[in-house]
Amino acid sequence: MIITFKPHTPPSEINKIRTFFIEHHCELKDVSLNDNFVFGVIGDTTNIDPKWIEANTYVSHVTRLNVPYKKVSRQLHPEDTVIEVKGIKIGGNHPLVMIAGPCSIEGRESTLLIAENVQKCGAHILRGGAYKPRTSPYTFQGLGSVGIQHMVEAREKTGMPIISELMSTEKLDEFLENVDIIQIGARNMQNFELLKAVGKVNKPVLLKRGISNTMEEWFMSAEYIMSEGNEQVILCERGIRTFEKYTRNTLDLSTIPLVKQLTHLPIIIDPSHATGNRDLVESMSLAAVAAGADGIMVEVHNDPEKAWSDGAQTLTFDAYKEMVEKCHKIATVIGRE
Amino acid sequence: MIITFKPHTPPSEINKIRTFFIEHHCELKDVSLNDNFVFGVIGDTTNIDPKWIEANTYVSHVTRLNVPYKKVSRQLHPEDTVIEVKGIKIGGNHPLVMIAGPCSIEGRESTLLIAENVQKCGAHILRGGAYKPRTSPYTFQGLGSVGIQHMVEAREKTGMPIISELMSTEKLDEFLENVDIIQIGARNMQNFELLKAVGKVNKPVLLKRGISNTMEEWFMSAEYIMSEGNEQVILCERGIRTFEKYTRNTLDLSTIPLVKQLTHLPIIIDPSHATGNRDLVESMSLAAVAAGADGIMVEVHNDPEKAWSDGAQTLTFDAYKEMVEKCHKIATVIGRE
Amino acid sequence: MIITFKPHTPPSEINKIRTFFIEHHCELKDVSLNDNFVFGVIGDTTNIDPKWIEANTYVSHVTRLNVPYKKVSRQLHPEDTVIEVKGIKIGGNHPLVMIAGPCSIEGRESTLLIAENVQKCGAHILRGGAYKPRTSPYTFQGLGSVGIQHMVEAREKTGMPIISELMSTEKLDEFLENVDIIQIGARNMQNFELLKAVGKVNKPVLLKRGISNTMEEWFMSAEYIMSEGNEQVILCERGIRTFEKYTRNTLDLSTIPLVKQLTHLPIIIDPSHATGNRDLVESMSLAAVAAGADGIMVEVHNDPEKAWSDGAQTLTFDAYKEMVEKCHKIATVIGRE
Amino acid sequence: MIITFKPHTPPSEINKIRTFFIEHHCELKDVSLNDNFVFGVIGDTTNIDPKWIEANTYVSHVTRLNVPYKKVSRQLHPEDTVIEVKGIKIGGNHPLVMIAGPCSIEGRESTLLIAENVQKCGAHILRGGAYKPRTSPYTFQGLGSVGIQHMVEAREKTGMPIISELMSTEKLDEFLENVDIIQIGARNMQNFELLKAVGKVNKPVLLKRGISNTMEEWFMSAEYIMSEGNEQVILCERGIRTFEKYTRNTLDLSTIPLVKQLTHLPIIIDPSHATGNRDLVESMSLAAVAAGADGIMVEVHNDPEKAWSDGAQTLTFDAYKEMVEKCHKIATVIGRE
Repeated sequence: MIITFKPHTPPSEINKIRTFFIEHHCELKDVSLNDNFVFGVIGDTTNIDPKWIEANTYVSHVTRLNVPYKKVSRQLHPEDTVIEVKGIKIGGNHPLVMIAGPCSIEGRESTLLIAENVQKCGAHILRGGAYKPRTSPYTFQGLGSVGIQHMVEAREKTGMPIISELMSTEKLDEFLENVDIIQIGARNMQNFELLKAVGKVNKPVLLKRGISNTMEEWFMSAEYIMSEGNEQVILCERGIRTFEKYTRNTLDLSTIPLVKQLTHLPIIIDPSHATGNRDLVESMSLAAVAAGADGIMVEVHNDPEKAWSDGAQTLTFDAYKEMVEKCHKIATVIGRE
Repeated sequence: MIITFKPHTPPSEINKIRTFFIEHHCELKDVSLNDNFVFGVIGDTTNIDPKWIEANTYVSHVTRLNVPYKKVSRQLHPEDTVIEVKGIKIGGNHPLVMIAGPCSIEGRESTLLIAENVQKCGAHILRGGAYKPRTSPYTFQGLGSVGIQHMVEAREKTGMPIISELMSTEKLDEFLENVDIIQIGARNMQNFELLKAVGKVNKPVLLKRGISNTMEEWFMSAEYIMSEGNEQVILCERGIRTFEKYTRNTLDLSTIPLVKQLTHLPIIIDPSHATGNRDLVESMSLAAVAAGADGIMVEVHNDPEKAWSDGAQTLTFDAYKEMVEKCHKIATVIGRE
Repeated sequence: MIITFKPHTPPSEINKIRTFFIEHHCELKDVSLNDNFVFGVIGDTTNIDPKWIEANTYVSHVTRLNVPYKKVSRQLHPEDTVIEVKGIKIGGNHPLVMIAGPCSIEGRESTLLIAENVQKCGAHILRGGAYKPRTSPYTFQGLGSVGIQHMVEAREKTGMPIISELMSTEKLDEFLENVDIIQIGARNMQNFELLKAVGKVNKPVLLKRGISNTMEEWFMSAEYIMSEGNEQVILCERGIRTFEKYTRNTLDLSTIPLVKQLTHLPIIIDPSHATGNRDLVESMSLAAVAAGADGIMVEVHNDPEKAWSDGAQTLTFDAYKEMVEKCHKIATVIGRE
Repeated sequence: MIITFKPHTPPSEINKIRTFFIEHHCELKDVSLNDNFVFGVIGDTTNIDPKWIEANTYVSHVTRLNVPYKKVSRQLHPEDTVIEVKGIKIGGNHPLVMIAGPCSIEGRESTLLIAENVQKCGAHILRGGAYKPRTSPYTFQGLGSVGIQHMVEAREKTGMPIISELMSTEKLDEFLENVDIIQIGARNMQNFELLKAVGKVNKPVLLKRGISNTMEEWFMSAEYIMSEGNEQVILCERGIRTFEKYTRNTLDLSTIPLVKQLTHLPIIIDPSHATGNRDLVESMSLAAVAAGADGIMVEVHNDPEKAWSDGAQTLTFDAYKEMVEKCHKIATVIGRE
């Protein structure tokens, strides 16, 4: 940590800062330049929030020298984390993982039908929403436990592991018992109580980036989970909020090389929620594979126009099949498969 | 709801849409213009998500004719909602309400000291964080129940009602018993399980706008609370995330006239979190009062530079006293007091 | 400037950086901390772009110690700049300046009618668009020189100085001859050729902030004008682009205290373009005055619904009169008048 | 165009709107639904700005039925536009076009060296900045005409056509004489005078999207050029401004399928400026090719760390060669080559 002070800072203020660091078992080294007082901090500053230092009106900048996400960072953990779910390996140099299913679980028949078909098209993992975060209290909120049970049945039929979104700690036991990967949705990326709770269990967690969260905040949320002991974290980019109106969100594919560079965690791309538009799902999926994504999660439905939620972004079986084939061709070209 | 179709839509697709609305007890009226098929929907569309209609690739636009937030909207509830907390009235034409206190509760002594002093300066309600949402798992997470008890003691001494942030449903009973206003923080604005839980209790809720949520989403989150039965909702603007770097967030003061126009709920402004900079707190508070805010919530501490969190945005007692006086003068000028 | 290097940077890379600075007549001072190589730069770095240093992959951070806008900064110019236009003083502790007029100049009669009426309501300066930047090539592009002549005639009648937007260097002579303040619009805030051109003349320039420009970029654009010799720059905030949909742009009033703190230039607020909604213009104007703005620029028209552009945000004479009176009351309360 | 009115709109207001449309040679058709007055407009509304109608306080929504960009839209021009520059075809199903060169032209030797080398690596067109838009007036502004002459010489040596950025109409003649493709930079995307000027010439124009412009605004700026007669427009996405800090801008690859769907123009991706980080350039280029881009424009330099601008995002010859090879493999897989 390097601290620069404004010109003419009184010595008493510099002493306040010095005392603060001594209390935090760090040392200050004077490295001033001409008119500018500059101090370097020697010692462990992980639990020091830079904002505490910036509170002093005489401080002009605080420059961190290390990233604040220790366990997520590739610095101390150079090899890729690979997460295994019922024999499917996610991350590292393992083949592309395809995750597909309906936005909302709507019933027993349709869940089984969709599961069998996406598997035929090449999906490895079944996704489906049983508890749905909805902007309006008046629209369909998901089948809840009944939906989870339909997914469990689909897993029995197909052998595919299942992923679903957990919205509150109260349902954690239900998810531990029934679900293979726990999804934390974009709106809950900074629901720290929920992060701590899934940090204490032994089950892979897919953590979606919040629609307006920086990558650093996303990595810090993964750090919440890992700091509690659960190291099976998969990151998932699903679009960020920008001023653009032709897409629901702007898919940020630069997350792929940056996640690979800065962290050791796998990264999955969800182009369905990002674009909100089925015509864009295939091209954004191919782009994600070309950029090095470890997997692609999309919404597929037997009758998208009758889907109970988000039909506009949902693929038919035929469209999904074609997309999976192209994804694998690109994966081969970039040396993944 | 008005639905416009793309040119050359096949009649079979129009029939699909027609069937959908009949199933939802609505009626379609053909109001086509030249080449453009246009349909009006007659009936209650509250529980119809426009995205379901947009899923049909032949649909080009869906225009809603009514706002989706029935209980929050001023349309059916023309008079201002006034919320009373221990004799203090928030909203309507009632005098400006001043809320102040430390960002984090740090100990018994400092809490009492701050409470007594902000009251002397003109504060009506004491704020303080006992459970703190923090980006990093390694920084101070708040004193928890101990912090709540310090606030309770401060209320006993001063008579000021207290407000604190609730982060999970598990602590709801503690808050019901001890706290006068439950704060839902910006990061939890779309934690729908938490919104439903505070919607079932009889206690005022201060709902902060998420840093990247539209006003419509904010009003929908208030609707979640009100639709469960709790109509004592106070809205609080605390800045939105933009590209600007000189402020932590951009305080959106246009929320004040818009909340007044579109809803019947009170609106409080929090300039401390928005700006992250104590030098801006006074001028933004005065601006908020001039624009018609019902109250101002700021951070005040006996020694801001030693505050355990967010000291950079925290006022001293003297600065707060001066600010309160100016706020009242402006309130008088605009006919509030 | 402080430069931090990544751990294990080879000495040859550090030498490259050292050579670079020596070539720019600066000196490097080694202030390393443990594993982290850190260098301080001594000398004038104004013409060094931090990006040149960041190009070295071994560099982790470049921290500037001084602001890059020398002439705009209050550091070397502590007293307020006051700009005088035909006896009206803008900035410093001078009374609030009210600027009003139609969005577009539409004709001789209406220009005279509006000029006389806004003056009666309390306006000091007449605004009007003769050359209009329009998103679509098919909508009204302004009356051009004819419009400027109508404004000149209105000045002759009323004595009010006039301000209008310059869109290209080709019209600069026309503006020098006819207009009292040259407005540079938000879309041209980084049209550097235009900035240099108005920097070479002796005429006040009102520089609008671009809808997605940081304050630092805005100050750098003012620096372009001032570095060419023209020090009569007035800054104007008119709203920034965010995700919010209920307003056209988000008016960023925190610019007011920050412009006062960081620069010595006057700041004017334009709430009409920011909000795009006449119902918000009055409350945002009052807020701007309370926050310390030096002036308020709004759109006023004798028949807003028939205005040729931006009628939705335009005030009637009566509404403007009421607003001006309230603005002055607030200015008095904050000790301005 | 469909216009919905608020409930209880007085008939006199509806008559105002009716009169307005009659004056614009359109017809209003009453298609009201229960309480909501709704009107459809029949006729050509291209030159009607929806804001004029929204100015009436009784109007609640204006829904456009057609896009405002007639010449850019694929609707009336279903076949792809292919732009030919010295035998190189851009757009349609033609092979991927690779554009490369230094950010700034720095001298004769380095320009020739870079030109020859990028050509060997597979580039088809040479890029280089002679007039540089710079945030600071104190940093290098480009070699100007001398830089253009170095590029001309490089073209003579290599046969590669050249592209450079035009910043003002005053230099248009120089560009017409010397340059093969005129680039309009992001900051000038809404410099309408410049757009009109390049719309009057017979030379391909590459139009970069502004960092905070919507796709619709971008298409409207292309429409400015085309409406003046020049139909040789190439669109170029170079990243948009968001809240993310790990990248300079967020590259919006969803522009690729949307440009293909909504327009008939070619689309080029510039990942260098978007990411500001050479480590991301290759993966974002591959992603862009996979998504269907017609070409890739990147910065390449013989010694990136000594480049006079934007070195951090600049590739070496070796890195560029490898990237070009991978791009072509992906182009083959998606059926482009």
